[in-house]
Amino acid sequence: MNKKGSVIVISGPSGSGKGTTVEAMLKERPELKLSISATTRAPRPGEVDGKNYFFLTKDEFESKVKNGEMLEYACYCGNYYGTPKDYVERCTENGDDIILEIDVQGGAQVEKIIEDAVSIFLIPPNKESLEKRLRGRGTEAEEVILQRLEQAQQELEYAPEYDYVVVCGEMSKCVSDIFSIIDTDKLKSKNMSEYIKENF
Amino acid sequence: MNKKGSVIVISGPSGSGKGTTVEAMLKERPELKLSISATTRAPRPGEVDGKNYFFLTKDEFESKVKNGEMLEYACYCGNYYGTPKDYVERCTENGDDIILEIDVQGGAQVEKIIEDAVSIFLIPPNKESLEKRLRGRGTEAEEVILQRLEQAQQELEYAPEYDYVVVCGEMSKCVSDIFSIIDTDKLKSKNMSEYIKENF
Repeated sequence: MNKKGSVIVISGPSGSGKGTTVEAMLKERPELKLSISATTRAPRPGEVDGKNYFFLTKDEFESKVKNGEMLEYACYCGNYYGTPKDYVERCTENGDDIILEIDVQGGAQVEKIIEDAVSIFLIPPNKESLEKRLRGRGTEAEEVILQRLEQAQQELEYAPEYDYVVVCGEMSKCVSDIFSIIDTDKLKSKNMSEYIKENF
Repeated sequence: MNKKGSVIVISGPSGSGKGTTVEAMLKERPELKLSISATTRAPRPGEVDGKNYFFLTKDEFESKVKNGEMLEYACYCGNYYGTPKDYVERCTENGDDIILEIDVQGGAQVEKIIEDAVSIFLIPPNKESLEKRLRGRGTEAEEVILQRLEQAQQELEYAPEYDYVVVCGEMSKCVSDIFSIIDTDKLKSKNMSEYIKENF
């Protein structure tokens, strides 16, 4: 039985701990795939096409967007960044679960294209821990920190567009909650109909 | 934060292992409540009203059905059996999760009344194990066994009406799958909105 893999969207406001969580997930389940983004920015020394990013020209990127070949995309500092659909589909058709770590707006876009995606919104335990994480990042001016806090607070409004909300406090609890969500998704009746057909 | 408890419907064809599974669940999590059925049959020696069953007269039962106070009901051998809504609601409002162990048609009825219910359909690992379990029950005539198998096969058709399908093979795996489903349900974004409101 070659079951289709799941698309797992991991998102959350800045300071929610997305990056660290995905790292911990991959460490515990190395069989999980991680989506590779496409970008129009120039490769940095050592970056490999198809590994760190898919490096595309502006024309190539825009044509992919036009043809509906991007699950989500955004423009930062004059460069495009996005998630190409074909790599994700190749992984799931191969039976692999694939993680998409994306910003809050991007995650909401993916849900609209891939209905079966499992979307998870990470949040810090509370406002105080969010502030502590944003402050802990460096030596930014108070103004910059307040801006970030304000932005994170606004990004929290996206939570209802996701399937699940997981508190990212203690990392082992956070990762085990996410794995429960992934495993449980495979028990949804629509995902079990093939099992019933094959065994009865 | 006094969160509302969940209604957990456990159902499945005859021979799926519902009874044993619910027993194992209650043993591992004694804080779980078990729904008490109402019936119009006479109490047997030792049976206590409000513990084994809520014993009702035919008139009382029918009036509850008419007033929408039964989550599901059915008639067997001239007696009514059903799940009264008020006991279930009292438990969930108290913050307790409550298990409803019911037959396949009953479970589908509950889902229509309590939208937030988590409904789980248990199945044996395969056709062979189903047959083995139905045969293992006693010394019934071949004809009776074939009838039961036929019925169980028909009951499997109800699976898509449930949220989840869990294979009831090894009991510890089955119970841990069900607990994952229950725990994961609490992480659904609609169930986490209160947490976000209170902590940010």
